[in-house]
Amino acid sequence: MKSRLMRLVSIPEGMPQPSNFKIEHEELGVPANGELLLKPIYISVDPYLRAAMSGGHPPNLNAGDIIISRGIAEVVRSSDKRFSQGDFVMGYMEWRDILIAKADGLIHLKNNALPLSAYLSVLGSTGLSAYFSLIEIGKPKRGETMIVSGAAGAVGSIAGQIGKILGCKVIGIVGSEEKAQLITSAFQFDAAINYKTNKDINATIQELCPEGIDIYFDNVGGTVSDAVISNMNDYGRVIVCGTIADYNNTMKATGPRLLPLVVFKKLLIQGFLIGDYKDRFEEGRRQLQHWLAEDKIHYTETIMEGFEQLPDAFIGLFNGTNKGKMLVKISSCTIY
Amino acid sequence: MKSRLMRLVSIPEGMPQPSNFKIEHEELGVPANGELLLKPIYISVDPYLRAAMSGGHPPNLNAGDIIISRGIAEVVRSSDKRFSQGDFVMGYMEWRDILIAKADGLIHLKNNALPLSAYLSVLGSTGLSAYFSLIEIGKPKRGETMIVSGAAGAVGSIAGQIGKILGCKVIGIVGSEEKAQLITSAFQFDAAINYKTNKDINATIQELCPEGIDIYFDNVGGTVSDAVISNMNDYGRVIVCGTIADYNNTMKATGPRLLPLVVFKKLLIQGFLIGDYKDRFEEGRRQLQHWLAEDKIHYTETIMEGFEQLPDAFIGLFNGTNKGKMLVKISSCTIY
Repeated sequence: MKSRLMRLVSIPEGMPQPSNFKIEHEELGVPANGELLLKPIYISVDPYLRAAMSGGHPPNLNAGDIIISRGIAEVVRSSDKRFSQGDFVMGYMEWRDILIAKADGLIHLKNNALPLSAYLSVLGSTGLSAYFSLIEIGKPKRGETMIVSGAAGAVGSIAGQIGKILGCKVIGIVGSEEKAQLITSAFQFDAAINYKTNKDINATIQELCPEGIDIYFDNVGGTVSDAVISNMNDYGRVIVCGTIADYNNTMKATGPRLLPLVVFKKLLIQGFLIGDYKDRFEEGRRQLQHWLAEDKIHYTETIMEGFEQLPDAFIGLFNGTNKGKMLVKISSCTIY
Repeated sequence: MKSRLMRLVSIPEGMPQPSNFKIEHEELGVPANGELLLKPIYISVDPYLRAAMSGGHPPNLNAGDIIISRGIAEVVRSSDKRFSQGDFVMGYMEWRDILIAKADGLIHLKNNALPLSAYLSVLGSTGLSAYFSLIEIGKPKRGETMIVSGAAGAVGSIAGQIGKILGCKVIGIVGSEEKAQLITSAFQFDAAINYKTNKDINATIQELCPEGIDIYFDNVGGTVSDAVISNMNDYGRVIVCGTIADYNNTMKATGPRLLPLVVFKKLLIQGFLIGDYKDRFEEGRRQLQHWLAEDKIHYTETIMEGFEQLPDAFIGLFNGTNKGKMLVKISSCTIY
């Protein structure tokens, strides 16, 4: 059986280009004991993969590697007694349209009345990242003011809604009017700032947050973050989930120094890896499912169709193409 | 009775100058009920006072204000039944050679076999700052590597020694060979880096810390901190005690962006105010006294003599004049 695979033929310099990727074909064997033959349904593309291509984030992706990220797949053939044909699994998998993978490390997805894709978005690493980092680093208190950058994105949109559930005033920063509309209507943010059209983001922040900012959930970094952090209250918490503005910088970016603000305002600035909270994923999923069932959290996904779309979907992350989680649909489910 | 007082006549632009200060004379009344007539023995000068002159740190010092900082004084006359003539008290006091102050908020110092000045250095805010921020933010583990900037200073010298007691490898960054000598001999640091003469601080750090840096106790900020933070390990902790390199900057300083490092290395960067740990000062003093008694902690003080030396002592902080805590001796103790 032939497998199509996506190889990273060169490390992007700056913004990733289609030419960094190449589709190849390879003959597949049969699954050995403990392995599964998998047909991916969805493959997740995420900003952290850009960092992984520069040695800044696991998995380390080098030129010549087959790209790997999280996906959901259907079991076509099982050589592991824990899985049967037709089961759905989630986990890290190579970018292939059909593949053989070790069963160990894959999660068996059971029916839960939500679409399969939810396991890569609101119930996946993105939703769990929003939940755990906000609760554990941000420690939101009722009545506090929170700003979310990348607020229409996969993690930001969930983080902002959790902030609202916990009683915060939540303002989102986005890159288009359509996204501003989305977060203030569907996601119930108190206000949106379009950083691309806003003439004085600092003044707008001060106007929208007369009591200062207690929590900043940052997905972007760069000058947007400069404006937000300079308006933080004493003992403010900055959750650094991502700095997409800097991922494609080939030059070392410079900006206003942060440490004086950290001293004067007694700030906490912290990064994290969602794996830090691995032991508590079930707790997180339960809480998110509960809020979904109560209709308190909404989520959106941008799904591109077809294996060959993987590079464009990935590149699109840096152009603001997606609203919510960006996924690529590789195959449809089979009814056995 | 006449009191000499030190007025801040103008807010420094950049580096503080003698002309920002002026000695005046004022007739003192008599202490009202609940007040004390105090003769200061030591007055503490600290880098945070520079920030206080720019609205960046309490107490807010404006042009025309009498400067206020921590001091130790002898009670000359008491109108509060908790204090008697000859008692020693510690607390915030105006820069005067004799003053009337409210008894509330002053700490009664009892004999403890250490010189009085220790209450403003190793047993004062500086020692307590080192202790609580290192324990609570740095969370040192045996075998970890720690770097201290401003390592011959009041807080840094104590922080480094506590790191050693707790089993860390500790490297100090200082601004002279004399200080390098001091921290590696008297204070038992594993190594010292003289940032003023070192040609490639980044390479030296990598050579001295082959296993990376887990804890950075920062008193200086600026380019020294850029070099250290770029060599932090994953999940490294940066305790931002001060950024003396930036306090006198009239321009907004810029430097390499930190947030991408925070994401990639999952760093924690945190500031604090020693008052955050107020409820635990007794615990901290007990622990520090215990280590002093065991001869595990040594401390040094730079004491200038005479009320009129206050501005020079303060300015000297930014020229690296001091080793350990900088104090000004105002009067001698009286034997009643």
